[in-house]
Amino acid sequence: MSLSPFDHPFLSGLFGDPELAGLLSARAEIEAMVAFEIALAAAQAECGVIPQADAEAIAGLETKYTADFEGLKSGLGRDGVVAPEMVKQMRSALGDQAARSLHFGATSQDVVDTSLVVRLKLITAILATRIAAVEKALAHLSDRFGGRKLMARTRMQDALEITVADRIADWTAPLARHRQRLEEIEERLLVVQYGGAVGILEKLGEDGPRVTRALAERLGLGFTEKPWHNQRDAIVEFSGWLGLVSGSLGKIGQDIAMMAQNAPRDVVLTGGGGSSAMPHKSNPVAAEVLVTLARYVAGSSGTMAQSLVHEQERSGAAWTLEWLVLPQMILATGSSLLLAIRLLDSVDGMGQG
Amino acid sequence: MSLSPFDHPFLSGLFGDPELAGLLSARAEIEAMVAFEIALAAAQAECGVIPQADAEAIAGLETKYTADFEGLKSGLGRDGVVAPEMVKQMRSALGDQAARSLHFGATSQDVVDTSLVVRLKLITAILATRIAAVEKALAHLSDRFGGRKLMARTRMQDALEITVADRIADWTAPLARHRQRLEEIEERLLVVQYGGAVGILEKLGEDGPRVTRALAERLGLGFTEKPWHNQRDAIVEFSGWLGLVSGSLGKIGQDIAMMAQNAPRDVVLTGGGGSSAMPHKSNPVAAEVLVTLARYVAGSSGTMAQSLVHEQERSGAAWTLEWLVLPQMILATGSSLLLAIRLLDSVDGMGQG
Amino acid sequence: MSLSPFDHPFLSGLFGDPELAGLLSARAEIEAMVAFEIALAAAQAECGVIPQADAEAIAGLETKYTADFEGLKSGLGRDGVVAPEMVKQMRSALGDQAARSLHFGATSQDVVDTSLVVRLKLITAILATRIAAVEKALAHLSDRFGGRKLMARTRMQDALEITVADRIADWTAPLARHRQRLEEIEERLLVVQYGGAVGILEKLGEDGPRVTRALAERLGLGFTEKPWHNQRDAIVEFSGWLGLVSGSLGKIGQDIAMMAQNAPRDVVLTGGGGSSAMPHKSNPVAAEVLVTLARYVAGSSGTMAQSLVHEQERSGAAWTLEWLVLPQMILATGSSLLLAIRLLDSVDGMGQG
Amino acid sequence: MSLSPFDHPFLSGLFGDPELAGLLSARAEIEAMVAFEIALAAAQAECGVIPQADAEAIAGLETKYTADFEGLKSGLGRDGVVAPEMVKQMRSALGDQAARSLHFGATSQDVVDTSLVVRLKLITAILATRIAAVEKALAHLSDRFGGRKLMARTRMQDALEITVADRIADWTAPLARHRQRLEEIEERLLVVQYGGAVGILEKLGEDGPRVTRALAERLGLGFTEKPWHNQRDAIVEFSGWLGLVSGSLGKIGQDIAMMAQNAPRDVVLTGGGGSSAMPHKSNPVAAEVLVTLARYVAGSSGTMAQSLVHEQERSGAAWTLEWLVLPQMILATGSSLLLAIRLLDSVDGMGQG
Repeated sequence: MSLSPFDHPFLSGLFGDPELAGLLSARAEIEAMVAFEIALAAAQAECGVIPQADAEAIAGLETKYTADFEGLKSGLGRDGVVAPEMVKQMRSALGDQAARSLHFGATSQDVVDTSLVVRLKLITAILATRIAAVEKALAHLSDRFGGRKLMARTRMQDALEITVADRIADWTAPLARHRQRLEEIEERLLVVQYGGAVGILEKLGEDGPRVTRALAERLGLGFTEKPWHNQRDAIVEFSGWLGLVSGSLGKIGQDIAMMAQNAPRDVVLTGGGGSSAMPHKSNPVAAEVLVTLARYVAGSSGTMAQSLVHEQERSGAAWTLEWLVLPQMILATGSSLLLAIRLLDSVDGMGQG
Repeated sequence: MSLSPFDHPFLSGLFGDPELAGLLSARAEIEAMVAFEIALAAAQAECGVIPQADAEAIAGLETKYTADFEGLKSGLGRDGVVAPEMVKQMRSALGDQAARSLHFGATSQDVVDTSLVVRLKLITAILATRIAAVEKALAHLSDRFGGRKLMARTRMQDALEITVADRIADWTAPLARHRQRLEEIEERLLVVQYGGAVGILEKLGEDGPRVTRALAERLGLGFTEKPWHNQRDAIVEFSGWLGLVSGSLGKIGQDIAMMAQNAPRDVVLTGGGGSSAMPHKSNPVAAEVLVTLARYVAGSSGTMAQSLVHEQERSGAAWTLEWLVLPQMILATGSSLLLAIRLLDSVDGMGQG
Repeated sequence: MSLSPFDHPFLSGLFGDPELAGLLSARAEIEAMVAFEIALAAAQAECGVIPQADAEAIAGLETKYTADFEGLKSGLGRDGVVAPEMVKQMRSALGDQAARSLHFGATSQDVVDTSLVVRLKLITAILATRIAAVEKALAHLSDRFGGRKLMARTRMQDALEITVADRIADWTAPLARHRQRLEEIEERLLVVQYGGAVGILEKLGEDGPRVTRALAERLGLGFTEKPWHNQRDAIVEFSGWLGLVSGSLGKIGQDIAMMAQNAPRDVVLTGGGGSSAMPHKSNPVAAEVLVTLARYVAGSSGTMAQSLVHEQERSGAAWTLEWLVLPQMILATGSSLLLAIRLLDSVDGMGQG
Repeated sequence: MSLSPFDHPFLSGLFGDPELAGLLSARAEIEAMVAFEIALAAAQAECGVIPQADAEAIAGLETKYTADFEGLKSGLGRDGVVAPEMVKQMRSALGDQAARSLHFGATSQDVVDTSLVVRLKLITAILATRIAAVEKALAHLSDRFGGRKLMARTRMQDALEITVADRIADWTAPLARHRQRLEEIEERLLVVQYGGAVGILEKLGEDGPRVTRALAERLGLGFTEKPWHNQRDAIVEFSGWLGLVSGSLGKIGQDIAMMAQNAPRDVVLTGGGGSSAMPHKSNPVAAEVLVTLARYVAGSSGTMAQSLVHEQERSGAAWTLEWLVLPQMILATGSSLLLAIRLLDSVDGMGQG
């Protein structure tokens, strides 16, 4: 039974995001790590760094290697990172010769960080699709109710009348910008990490850049001349973007919760939440939870940014902090997108007259 | 497979805390909610508010009620809180008469918040015991190595020589204060919540205070005249305390990681973590992760404090935020205490000469 | 012209707190540092550590020493702390003999931290007085309007009718707890810091504890056997308390802003803020700003807690972080108390009927 | 005497940034507001919305209007925003006719937000220039010492030898990305805000877009079809960027502080800070303070992101939160850039051999 709200036995009824949870699961992480090792071997064979036969043997790990999670757990408890034990397990599934070629010139951070990036590529695509779905749901609401009247409120006081379309426009505009931002960020984020023990690929010599490029191509990632192992700006930038997305949705949630407050209501929702004490109530639960998730991701972005102080060639302290914070931020943002779609789809009326 | 680092398939090798994870699991939460309903019925029967027979039937739920988690998940997705569906499930396990007496005068927040507090009573006891264990481990180190020399460092520069005992004293002193603080906080925190729909126990009339007191006694909790449902200060105060504890351990971790830096090392650790690229290394993993956890809990305490702005009689937005943040803070602090004990037990030498 | 909102040329109209700003000014900080040096000399003379004549000469600095702020600024830019230059300036205002006795056995942190604590003693007294004033204003409102009806709202929806007194009781109860907490915290917070270069008073020998005790008495502070220079838990605990106080006031502000939303209004305020575009509006500015300050102090408390990872015998990085965060948190909390009083005094009616 | 560390009588020795402080001062804010009103009148005259003569009279305010800060302070205390009183003061400096044309169709948020953006345009240019200066200083160090040996450290342990150039490359690479990011952000950030009371320019009718475009051109800003008054994503995005910049500098600071730790030192600094107790020390003060500022801005970015939940057409609570946080973040980042330049210029040697 998971303790995470995002795959919790019952909290997942609100926060659940099985699609992203799948990509952030231990299993998916290991699979992406295996994919890294296979792609690395293939790239190295292509560049003549390891024998082709070894690369083929290593490619077989995709089906042949089954993670021993108990062993990985002990390994992580000892090494602080799952890679050494995983590589050891993979090596024992290979013959001696191929075992020596596995993970060649690589270090834990290469496989762990690239495994993250490989999955971020899938995750960002999903998030972008969901943002577009929210935009579509908003456009649909504007089509249906955009011409109706709404009392604009500034500082929580009645101001002047606007239309429902006016308010929906304010909800919609940031979303297109978020998609634009994501495209810009992806250039910096979806980049292979391969640097070896200290980021200089000391075992590769002159082959380093060629192997890195070949590896990046195989994984569908970008690459930089110098590995980014201790340059965490793209990761933190992405986490800030998650804050922007969930924050914009939080504003929608806050507005809808306020529109649902009073008679005559400015929004009519179907299927609001019930109360154990007051069966007559219809609570704007999804709207409120959008606010919750916005505040959660906002605060988490501040914690995540602490990991930029990543000392020397690898900071166990700062790197591990990312592991505690980033997956939960992704899930919270993914969850807020799902909830926003659900909330907007539940709108039965907006505005007056 | 859990997404939480604290019961994750492999991250739990470092962060795992099965004891606290058990108390924060969905199952334990439901069990404490059942205990609340049983104690409430017993208290109400004792005060003549419901028939004794109903209380006895309700008491039978301890064995008779098995949570249907799928149903709870749907219920939470709809209602934003697990209680309405749980009460419904419990009612269908009872006859009509007792069903009417179940959850009498109570609301979702009563059962959810009191379930939390009941478990916090167990959790704080565990945390206090672990703090004492860290103090003991430190005392043991001071006994073994306290007389040895250590170069004090201020602003990361050599300053003057002190003894190992001097530094250990600085690690130890805050821990006794943390135990003292916890005792003070418990007075405010371990308090029953029972207020009904809007905090005035409108269905109980003059019986309200008597029932509340009887309920509190049965649960081993304190009580206040007015329920605290929308006064979240004690919860946030406790979360701040978690930050203090993990922060003090983070200082120990940072110091030990720095002591392990250079030859001649100021600390010798057995069983440091290995590297996939450099087998010769012995990394002070546990020390680093204490820093990680300190930064995580520190940042989370700032997010948690946002939930103090708990509007009106019940804020779905603010309350739900607590659910996302507090359990992870408890687990991170519990985990940091376990790691501190493990780290200190692994010390084979400190200081010079 | 100050850049701080708390003594800003016009933002201070809302956020200004001249009383606390005075105690947190550069001038007050220097004065308290001078008081430390004078009390230290007196305590040392009393204990026979320095000649009585020197202590008397040093006592004369109270009137004789005028800080050269330009010099202090350069000194701080160089040394990272104001004390070395201030001591140098003070020494040049003394004869050679007394100059040698000045700051004897002390280090920068002793004078800077104790200067803070001396002022925190005054500050906490002011904050406690203001909390009591908020409680009194709330009691007065309850006297005037407590019996009137109010629609309780849960999850921002109409729930059941309560009285104005019920809601005010929820605003009031945390405040008494905050005063209680402050008393508990003061025991740990209002403690002299005197430890010398590395916290062992190496120049004092056996006289250390006696001098520390005498110094503490002269300053009206507590003392601990071991100086707390790198144990920042009491400071961070206090910052968490500031978050609790401003958070409780933020809830009041949020509630009042929501009560002022609609006709028929649940609160009538005199003197709400105007708009440059809509002269007819009466905005609940003070209520909103209580929410602002709550969110600000909440977030800042998470940043402040990062300073617990205070490495070795003195961390320039962590210590300096406190300087950036704590004064602003104190001022924001003081300001929120002043605003709460002003807001409550402006209430002309509450509830219905 | 300012309470802000960034223009504080002595803290400014470390944190002072007179150039940015000037742009964030109350005076500069008012000047930019005056510039907004003048540009608005000119744009409206150009579009035939107000008489040309009125625009000319309003243009005269640049020299004729002197802010009465006491009045502005009272106004802000009452209205929660400085604009209504400022407009009133400006109107009384004009004849009746022109007074009616001043601030036509505008609201407080238009003038306050655009005043911010106008100054952000200057601020971002300064920040970009400083980043380039840091890059240049790093390149210079790499030229001087790049070929020397450095022990790479992972998890704070000796790993393998790299060169000084390798490490400097890791410090440098993020900076170019930060400049690239800033260019992308500026497209979204440097955008005029002009929307009137509720964002629909209700007084302008069909002239709205034309006036907005003309206004934007006069101010050298971009414009959007719908004003962004309650869409705060670009502001928060910018604050996240500040966190990235100061975080990257914090890593440099942390690395240099660690390189300065031990004999043989990996970095030699001139002019390190002194100690009041240990005159022999040379403390890497600027390096440490880069870490401080990184942690401060990181934490503040989490607080700032809370302001995305900006309810309805204008949230006093969320908007005011920006005022408390953003200027300090800008100053901290500006200050960290200045300190980084100073620190790098003070390097007298790096690496070994």
